[in-house]
Amino acid sequence: MENYIELALAEAHKALKQGEVPIGACIVRDGKVIAKAHNIRQKTRNAVNHAEIIAIQKACKKLHDWRLSDCDIYITLKPCPMCAGAIANARIKNVYYAAEETNSDDHLCESIFLSNRLNHKPNLIKIENEECSKILSDFFASRRKENRD
Amino acid sequence: MENYIELALAEAHKALKQGEVPIGACIVRDGKVIAKAHNIRQKTRNAVNHAEIIAIQKACKKLHDWRLSDCDIYITLKPCPMCAGAIANARIKNVYYAAEETNSDDHLCESIFLSNRLNHKPNLIKIENEECSKILSDFFASRRKENRD
Repeated sequence: MENYIELALAEAHKALKQGEVPIGACIVRDGKVIAKAHNIRQKTRNAVNHAEIIAIQKACKKLHDWRLSDCDIYITLKPCPMCAGAIANARIKNVYYAAEETNSDDHLCESIFLSNRLNHKPNLIKIENEECSKILSDFFASRRKENRD
Repeated sequence: MENYIELALAEAHKALKQGEVPIGACIVRDGKVIAKAHNIRQKTRNAVNHAEIIAIQKACKKLHDWRLSDCDIYITLKPCPMCAGAIANARIKNVYYAAEETNSDDHLCESIFLSNRLNHKPNLIKIENEECSKILSDFFASRRKENRD
């Protein structure tokens, strides 16, 4: 498990190098990495291109199926509603995330995963990895500094 | 407004012809149609390929921006959590939808649009168009019949 979140973190570092919000994801099945991706929203000028969405698209392509039923996803940050919805739509089994959203006290991700509208309820599991939070807080601190200078 | 939902409905008919769940979307800015799309999840074997997601991706490409701030979206069915999240992420202004989800009493779409986690709160507006509901109920009735026969 430690290795997979490290792979997601390596993806977040790729995003950081490109000036993107540093978030990464990794999809695993039977101990094998199926897809890895990082956030490329700015570069591609595409609102949908979060790390999780790209990883899900890659995994669907690789497995020739829109159902990722036996897959788990590792994410450096707790998913936004779009990505939580995509994870549930893709029927991913377990969702491991490290960093928490700091400026929010809602429980939308949990509500989405428990919704009766969707045919699948993924398990949401918090794991410890301080680096996943630090890369994000450093990024936003640096952005605020740039805006002040 | 009537015309735009009719365009979304025409997209739903395209999905139906391909054996997909018949849902369509249309994005409009300043009275001009920017993007149209229909659900192609089965054909593309991609969990993310709902009508709204494809329409948002097309519109971002056309406008060279992940922000669709001055755009409205017309959808034949109230959006699922993934698509509601994508609409909020893309900062779409007004969301017009016709059919309601029948097997759900949750208010996830409203919760997502009001969430503090997202930087934008789209307006959600129900419009009347019986055909948008009928095409869906006919599709699922026909599927149930096939499963019985």
